Amino acid sequence: MPQPERRYVITFGCPDRTGIVARISSFLAEHGGLIVEAAYHTDQATNWFFTRQEVRADSLPFGVEELRERFTAIARELGAQANWRVTDTGERRRVVILVSKEGHCLYDLLGRVASRELDVDVAAVIGNHPDLANITRAHGIPFHHVPFPATDPEGKTAAFAQVKQLVDAHDPHAVVLARFMQVLPPELCAAWSGRALNIHHSFLPSFVGARPYHQARARGVKLVGATCHYVTADLDAGPIVEQDVIRVNHTDSVADMVRKGRDIEKVVLARGLRWHLEDRVLVHGGQTVIF
Amino acid sequence: MPQPERRYVITFGCPDRTGIVARISSFLAEHGGLIVEAAYHTDQATNWFFTRQEVRADSLPFGVEELRERFTAIARELGAQANWRVTDTGERRRVVILVSKEGHCLYDLLGRVASRELDVDVAAVIGNHPDLANITRAHGIPFHHVPFPATDPEGKTAAFAQVKQLVDAHDPHAVVLARFMQVLPPELCAAWSGRALNIHHSFLPSFVGARPYHQARARGVKLVGATCHYVTADLDAGPIVEQDVIRVNHTDSVADMVRKGRDIEKVVLARGLRWHLEDRVLVHGGQTVIF
Amino acid sequence: MPQPERRYVITFGCPDRTGIVARISSFLAEHGGLIVEAAYHTDQATNWFFTRQEVRADSLPFGVEELRERFTAIARELGAQANWRVTDTGERRRVVILVSKEGHCLYDLLGRVASRELDVDVAAVIGNHPDLANITRAHGIPFHHVPFPATDPEGKTAAFAQVKQLVDAHDPHAVVLARFMQVLPPELCAAWSGRALNIHHSFLPSFVGARPYHQARARGVKLVGATCHYVTADLDAGPIVEQDVIRVNHTDSVADMVRKGRDIEKVVLARGLRWHLEDRVLVHGGQTVIF
Amino acid sequence: MPQPERRYVITFGCPDRTGIVARISSFLAEHGGLIVEAAYHTDQATNWFFTRQEVRADSLPFGVEELRERFTAIARELGAQANWRVTDTGERRRVVILVSKEGHCLYDLLGRVASRELDVDVAAVIGNHPDLANITRAHGIPFHHVPFPATDPEGKTAAFAQVKQLVDAHDPHAVVLARFMQVLPPELCAAWSGRALNIHHSFLPSFVGARPYHQARARGVKLVGATCHYVTADLDAGPIVEQDVIRVNHTDSVADMVRKGRDIEKVVLARGLRWHLEDRVLVHGGQTVIF
Repeated sequence: MPQPERRYVITFGCPDRTGIVARISSFLAEHGGLIVEAAYHTDQATNWFFTRQEVRADSLPFGVEELRERFTAIARELGAQANWRVTDTGERRRVVILVSKEGHCLYDLLGRVASRELDVDVAAVIGNHPDLANITRAHGIPFHHVPFPATDPEGKTAAFAQVKQLVDAHDPHAVVLARFMQVLPPELCAAWSGRALNIHHSFLPSFVGARPYHQARARGVKLVGATCHYVTADLDAGPIVEQDVIRVNHTDSVADMVRKGRDIEKVVLARGLRWHLEDRVLVHGGQTVIF
Repeated sequence: MPQPERRYVITFGCPDRTGIVARISSFLAEHGGLIVEAAYHTDQATNWFFTRQEVRADSLPFGVEELRERFTAIARELGAQANWRVTDTGERRRVVILVSKEGHCLYDLLGRVASRELDVDVAAVIGNHPDLANITRAHGIPFHHVPFPATDPEGKTAAFAQVKQLVDAHDPHAVVLARFMQVLPPELCAAWSGRALNIHHSFLPSFVGARPYHQARARGVKLVGATCHYVTADLDAGPIVEQDVIRVNHTDSVADMVRKGRDIEKVVLARGLRWHLEDRVLVHGGQTVIF
Repeated sequence: MPQPERRYVITFGCPDRTGIVARISSFLAEHGGLIVEAAYHTDQATNWFFTRQEVRADSLPFGVEELRERFTAIARELGAQANWRVTDTGERRRVVILVSKEGHCLYDLLGRVASRELDVDVAAVIGNHPDLANITRAHGIPFHHVPFPATDPEGKTAAFAQVKQLVDAHDPHAVVLARFMQVLPPELCAAWSGRALNIHHSFLPSFVGARPYHQARARGVKLVGATCHYVTADLDAGPIVEQDVIRVNHTDSVADMVRKGRDIEKVVLARGLRWHLEDRVLVHGGQTVIF
Repeated sequence: MPQPERRYVITFGCPDRTGIVARISSFLAEHGGLIVEAAYHTDQATNWFFTRQEVRADSLPFGVEELRERFTAIARELGAQANWRVTDTGERRRVVILVSKEGHCLYDLLGRVASRELDVDVAAVIGNHPDLANITRAHGIPFHHVPFPATDPEGKTAAFAQVKQLVDAHDPHAVVLARFMQVLPPELCAAWSGRALNIHHSFLPSFVGARPYHQARARGVKLVGATCHYVTADLDAGPIVEQDVIRVNHTDSVADMVRKGRDIEKVVLARGLRWHLEDRVLVHGGQTVIF
């Protein structure tokens, strides 16, 4: 895949009013900024304005630091408070992946990285089981095995502390729970807020909690799905980034549903992760705007 | 559309064991019965066998009554009890449709009937509001307005009694709740058991109850759906016949979701009704087998 | 459906360069224009910039005529030439529908209009067969029967002249070929350029020409589709507005494919028509940008 | 995934007539054969009957060889000629995969095999480029690099001869062209007839030949797809096993279409291969029946 030229990405949210687009685009035009991609949205219910802009880095006479600094004044003027970011596609994205025993999502992500479709650094894979160590290392990526005790709460706390340390050492842009099967404690949800992506194996809010395919089979639904969402302290209730479904029927056993559902889990997680890393996801009041 | 030749349809369920297919197919072959379509399924979890067979009427030396009678012995032998039916595609299907104010499902069904895609008799349309009377009558179909009081429970009981009388006068093969917006009382659920089809405007079990599109918008889901199910005394919990979904995003207001969802409601209801009228739906333990 | 407040819609295309967004948005902001919806796109291959903006009518101190006049200068400045429009959602859209014998698309459109989901005036329906006259008139819409001779070329020319006269009398925003089954002569394609929408019953460019479902059955495809496109003198080759598909399998006869395909034809045409009437479709070099 | 118990699979085609189902099922019942899954289909156009039956191996008093021998008489009696097979799920399926430089399909298949979702032996991977050697070997699978000259026809013939030898050494149940990018010569098409599966990166018959995503972009289609088909001497015209599509729009460059299309290529190939290896695909007159 040819690499697109370097760009600065501005994402921004503020109360809606007349002249926001003009203010931002005039600022960019003034400095010769060539907008390569731009998207706007106003949420009528909350009167909140959102935008995302991609500007060619070489069209501006200054770097990302100065762009960020100059943009601070505009953000303040428009009342954006903390709801904005300026990022640089020239900074390589770092990802840490948490796994358990089931490898389909990990295999899929590693394949995408190896074929450079997903052009990121997988800094580390951490598993509470060792099963996926070999394939990870075959891709030249470090694998850390952090065993989790089944019941002992203190042991679990210690294990999570170790996971946190291993993750935070890389300061990753995304922490991916690729069928991790452990519920993150509130302090990790807080620490990785807006960066931790989970793949849930149901079309939420259907079948929250454990064994969703068993629940789906029992209810006799005609489609099963998967949901990629940000992890919050509220289990399976974080802002939804992407969802999709696949058709099932009466001939499908739970095992068949599991198999068919995996194909959906993989693409839903891969899409959600890509959009997150490209700064396309803006969270607002428990919902997401995907630009 | 060319009319297919007349057929007898056998649907059948019994505990699984060796030789069921042989028993049924040998019986048919013995009398020269030409099987035009056949489907089998065994539910491993409950060890239950299901089949549906379409036989060309003119290949058998007797009529549907005698086929039914002769088949009774086989059904008894195989332990099918009440779980079987023999129907005749030569008997025209009668349908009664219950509506309220929203016409999209009714318009859709009437269009399908008018273009003979759905080759059935709509015996009557009954509305708790008069809004859809004109279009119904323009199709040459009787419309009955049965007003429902908003709160008075006795008035509601009386209204339902009148609806029941109007419906039962036609002894319909299907009672279609095409966005009827009134919860059927248990006695009507019982009376029309296995014949009353509802269209629910969500991908059940997500968003049971009222205003599902509002619920969907609040949760920020990326797909909305619709569910066609048999009506049971358990609200929105009857056996699911068909479901489908359509993609929505952050730009869609509740009104947009309602509009997009309608396209799904229409096709899901139309498919479910067709399958029901063609005796393709077998109910077993709260789930459906669709042949 | 609640009616959204009146808006002016600007659609615009010009060679890409720095400052276009700033120029347009500053002009609007200067006059207090509140942008309700905005979309931008740059086609990298041809370096062409596209935008669509919805502005609240009551936020501007002048009407659509003056907005159009004032915008002329900007369009000239940016080199847009004829590639721009300013329209007013307060002007009710007029549609003329051309049909033959098959009614499914017409029934669907009339149902959408009757339920005000598609809030337009169907000024007239014109059929080369009289079959759909009754249902059209039941909706209170004039129906004109213009017979087309099967072979006589002069008679055909005369028939098309009559159709043109009937259509042009309404100066419609859209001429919808809802399974019209007659190939428009080049002079009508030219006269209605950018306003005539056809629904083709295949996933173009597969199966151009006649009897696409027969072609699909013969090739053994696993999905059939439909395509809504602008009519051009090049048969089935006009710019594509919308497409969709539905799954078929070996059990589906041509008649089954026809039936399943109709559900796709209906939604694809309805979506394409809605986008066209909302000025969401910009044509550029044989392709469409859908905002 | 739990391994299902061993089964014998009968696939069968013959001219349709009364009593075929009875003949086969009576034969099985006579020997105590428990049918676990059964499917029937009659193609009305050609009056051809198809069936596929899965019988529990432990329910029969003899092995697969004797079943095959005994079934020969029935097949002869019913005029099936060469159109039938009896296979044993206890015999592990062997697959050889041919690749070039693009790894997404290979990564996907290896991931499915590694997670035992696709429980087969990949006997070898053969590439005309060495790029995918490492990942193949990391999975413990032999990789053979057979360079293909760009133009020299004799060198190409020799390369194909080497590929044939390497493939045939394993007598594989399937030869998978996982984006192999070389057109098989007629003699290999013949030698691997009914066993060689290709994944084509378009929704055939749209965009046959080279660079289908470029063709799709130029035509402005709103969906791109992929097709898994048996390889025949007629390029891109073999019997279609599976197809699917994904939505694209004006913002998608050719590179974006390539990326989105890959997700479809992977699942379409994986589904097609699974069905082939489970003896679910019956070819008849250039089309497939998928049971």
